[in-house]
Amino acid sequence: MSLNFQNEAFCSYVFYSALLLVKMFALAILTGQVRLRKKAFANPEDSLRHGGLKFYRTDPAVERCRRAHRNDMECIFPFLFLGVVYCLLDPSPSVARVHFRIFFLARVAHTVAYLFALKAPARSLAYTLGQAPCFSMALKILINVASYW
Amino acid sequence: MSLNFQNEAFCSYVFYSALLLVKMFALAILTGQVRLRKKAFANPEDSLRHGGLKFYRTDPAVERCRRAHRNDMECIFPFLFLGVVYCLLDPSPSVARVHFRIFFLARVAHTVAYLFALKAPARSLAYTLGQAPCFSMALKILINVASYW
Amino acid sequence: MSLNFQNEAFCSYVFYSALLLVKMFALAILTGQVRLRKKAFANPEDSLRHGGLKFYRTDPAVERCRRAHRNDMECIFPFLFLGVVYCLLDPSPSVARVHFRIFFLARVAHTVAYLFALKAPARSLAYTLGQAPCFSMALKILINVASYW
Repeated sequence: MSLNFQNEAFCSYVFYSALLLVKMFALAILTGQVRLRKKAFANPEDSLRHGGLKFYRTDPAVERCRRAHRNDMECIFPFLFLGVVYCLLDPSPSVARVHFRIFFLARVAHTVAYLFALKAPARSLAYTLGQAPCFSMALKILINVASYW
Repeated sequence: MSLNFQNEAFCSYVFYSALLLVKMFALAILTGQVRLRKKAFANPEDSLRHGGLKFYRTDPAVERCRRAHRNDMECIFPFLFLGVVYCLLDPSPSVARVHFRIFFLARVAHTVAYLFALKAPARSLAYTLGQAPCFSMALKILINVASYW
Repeated sequence: MSLNFQNEAFCSYVFYSALLLVKMFALAILTGQVRLRKKAFANPEDSLRHGGLKFYRTDPAVERCRRAHRNDMECIFPFLFLGVVYCLLDPSPSVARVHFRIFFLARVAHTVAYLFALKAPARSLAYTLGQAPCFSMALKILINVASYW
């Protein structure tokens, strides 16, 4: 089993991973836009360009974007590792795709729930749903390499 | 040299990497538990579900978990890259395993030192010990591809 | 197309990626040095070792290092994924190298602009320049696996 574009599970993994990274890049751009709109800058040099040092301050809407972004880093980066190793274990393409799709949809739902401040526990549910395929893949991986401790 | 489960160093890398990611997932779950116990929520919508807006606040125990988690991201994610490229360089399986084991044990020690607020410099020593195999692998990698700048 | 050290684009990717991770490790070391010099520690146990609890505090210079480091995580970790998958798509080695070099130079410039608090929009320009090859690689990847949604 190797990683190439004949491996159907791998292609599916690449597709959803790349899409989630683009989603994260979009979140970074959004954070910048919210900083400009709310006039709340993380650095004095930025605030000086946009009206003065009084705008070197924090803002709840900006912090919300940053928390969503940080949570993405905590979940999506581990997925990049788990997903590719899982593909090397020759999973059924359809089972693999179910894993990746659940993760993808859960992470999109998580971002939506975060940015629109949806009523709890919407965001937590999306988070938990997204972690399920990650734990499933981690378990399958660990069982396969358990003798290499 | 390629990445597959006949490559002993790669299996060892996968084992310790997956275990460290599960450790990070556990830390995320712990952070949530500490938020609930301390009643300190990062979002107004969460606090409203658990007693009111007065619990939309920070807490030192929660921040401690978050710093431990962030430090994991700063160290473990680079390891995922360095470790896999290092495996492609056909290292001795036993030397490779020493690298991965030191990193793994140092990062577990780092988390323990962080969460239990062990007396300084326990945590710094664990951090430094964990970085040693990372620098060693980075050096070996850079020497091998130095002509591709 | 597979990942090995006969693949020229892959070697170039490995070189710049490893160098950027070493840059991030250096930034972490710098953060520790700035904490010691400014006497501003993130943990009470650290402050007790360096003069007392009054040094358990934040400092603008430390926070600046931490923001630079976090921005690196937001940009460089996605690059590690995008770069390797891009290499699997058999790009022209010279086009690939242009992508990696632009990203590398932009990220070094970003760190310099951050640490020296260069006049805006120097840092934003470096950030935007660095994201350009990432979006280009993400686009090429998504086009290639678009049928695997």
